[in-house]
Amino acid sequence: MELITVEDVTAAAERIADIAVRTPLLPCAWADPDRPLWLKPENLQPIGAFKIRGAANAIARIPASARPRGVVAYSSGNHAQAVAYVAKRFGLPAAIVVPENTPAVKIEATRGHGAEVVIVPITDREIVAERLVAERGATLIPPFDHRDVIAGQGTLGLEVAADLPSVDVVLVPVSGGGLASGVATAVKALAPSAQVIGVEPELAGDAAASLAAGRLVRWSPQDRERTSADGLRAEPSELTFAHLTKLLDGIVTVSEEEIREAIAVLAHRAHLVAEPSGAVTTAAYLHRSSELPKGATVAIVSGGNINPADLTAILTG
Amino acid sequence: MELITVEDVTAAAERIADIAVRTPLLPCAWADPDRPLWLKPENLQPIGAFKIRGAANAIARIPASARPRGVVAYSSGNHAQAVAYVAKRFGLPAAIVVPENTPAVKIEATRGHGAEVVIVPITDREIVAERLVAERGATLIPPFDHRDVIAGQGTLGLEVAADLPSVDVVLVPVSGGGLASGVATAVKALAPSAQVIGVEPELAGDAAASLAAGRLVRWSPQDRERTSADGLRAEPSELTFAHLTKLLDGIVTVSEEEIREAIAVLAHRAHLVAEPSGAVTTAAYLHRSSELPKGATVAIVSGGNINPADLTAILTG
Repeated sequence: MELITVEDVTAAAERIADIAVRTPLLPCAWADPDRPLWLKPENLQPIGAFKIRGAANAIARIPASARPRGVVAYSSGNHAQAVAYVAKRFGLPAAIVVPENTPAVKIEATRGHGAEVVIVPITDREIVAERLVAERGATLIPPFDHRDVIAGQGTLGLEVAADLPSVDVVLVPVSGGGLASGVATAVKALAPSAQVIGVEPELAGDAAASLAAGRLVRWSPQDRERTSADGLRAEPSELTFAHLTKLLDGIVTVSEEEIREAIAVLAHRAHLVAEPSGAVTTAAYLHRSSELPKGATVAIVSGGNINPADLTAILTG
Repeated sequence: MELITVEDVTAAAERIADIAVRTPLLPCAWADPDRPLWLKPENLQPIGAFKIRGAANAIARIPASARPRGVVAYSSGNHAQAVAYVAKRFGLPAAIVVPENTPAVKIEATRGHGAEVVIVPITDREIVAERLVAERGATLIPPFDHRDVIAGQGTLGLEVAADLPSVDVVLVPVSGGGLASGVATAVKALAPSAQVIGVEPELAGDAAASLAAGRLVRWSPQDRERTSADGLRAEPSELTFAHLTKLLDGIVTVSEEEIREAIAVLAHRAHLVAEPSGAVTTAAYLHRSSELPKGATVAIVSGGNINPADLTAILTG
């Protein structure tokens, strides 16, 4: 299977420059001096997560003739916000198909970006999205199983390599694997001595199981939904798994309690509000040091869209 | 009185480039479309506040011959952390004089940066600091009443003008006035059509009273200490007041309740943990629109060092 290249990622970086924020690396004065830590705060993107990068690259690649027919995505999470926000920035109509159990606050946020929200039974999401694509001639923007989306997420890795060429370890969350695939492509090309380590919740550790087995191991949606990290419940595709197999130097898992503790550390010491999915890399840094390479470490804080009540509950302990 | 120049600020920017984080402007998708809002998140600096900029510029300007004798500062707040952190980065010894009522957590943080902490009765702070300077031949780094410190804080304004040349309104917290003086110097030089508006807590509104009176109006420390915004309890000096008089286009005040609400908005919508002093500009944006110019607005989130219990209390409402 043909993998994306660093040239795909550098081309993506030009396309998304006006849409995504160029997030800085934040040095952490409180880190272990033997393993200096920088955070890459993607929770500060306009929609609160890195997903804006892949959506921007994929939408920028839609031919002018197809743009008036718009885009479609199915997601209840950050990818939905990203597609809605980017489509509005490009002036394209967007339809987001969400399951009927989606929290009202997320539906309002998606509508707030000007998107049409289509509410369907959860099992009908893909069918309805495909029907909209067929009826309207719209372009489907998948959350990770797409070369342009992977290349867009990889722009984050370009920035890490540019800002810290001597980086030794990059910790990246793994769900569908789009972010990890893109970031590893960029980092391995531009900072080849760096090791790229995936991080998953133990309760959705299917990618770790797959990498250990050397083939895609499927966990049931019910199993994967046990984790509080609602952005990390997807599973890799054949395309992303091919990237992860070739490019990742390792993968570690973290517990739910470690994720909660990392959210509190990020709030109190780094002044960042992270969602559970965004905190897994910090959890790994804090609690999995024996499984990680030494040296200058970057932890990707992938998103910040946590339910206010959940944040308060974690901070009150 | 001779004011600092934009050339002083651009020279400072080179000196601090390796110490301070180049923070991005964060566009807020949730803002009023008629007054688009960008946040300048200085709470993400290594010590959690903009103060690192002024400290870095002042310490970088110490002649090589004087460096081994170190630096002294008296502060219980972000300036102490900044001087301690920057001195460590430059390899200089630092002594920080703090009043005996300083929370243990702040003393530990200062020691964590390698500084000597000298604990004294609050009324003795300046005397002890001056004695240390005299005894050791050390250099005193004042929190705001110093041209190099003002120029260092101004680098933040350079970044605003570079990242958003079409900015219409810059909202900046005012306490001793070092940040506002430096930022206004840079913004007025590089984005001359922008208006720079100071923001103070109502309960420490001495700079607003002084600007209205056209002369420095002194409020008692007891009055100024009523605000929760502990970083905004200082009062301008003759030097900073001269800058504010010439360069500020206005100043507004916000209530304690508005500050608390802004902290919650920043956490939930912008994924940033702000301290009360860092939230006053967002409070002004949200609650003082009738007193502010229209147009593209930048709110400086000056710091994030809030007591964890205070943050939790605000988020639980």
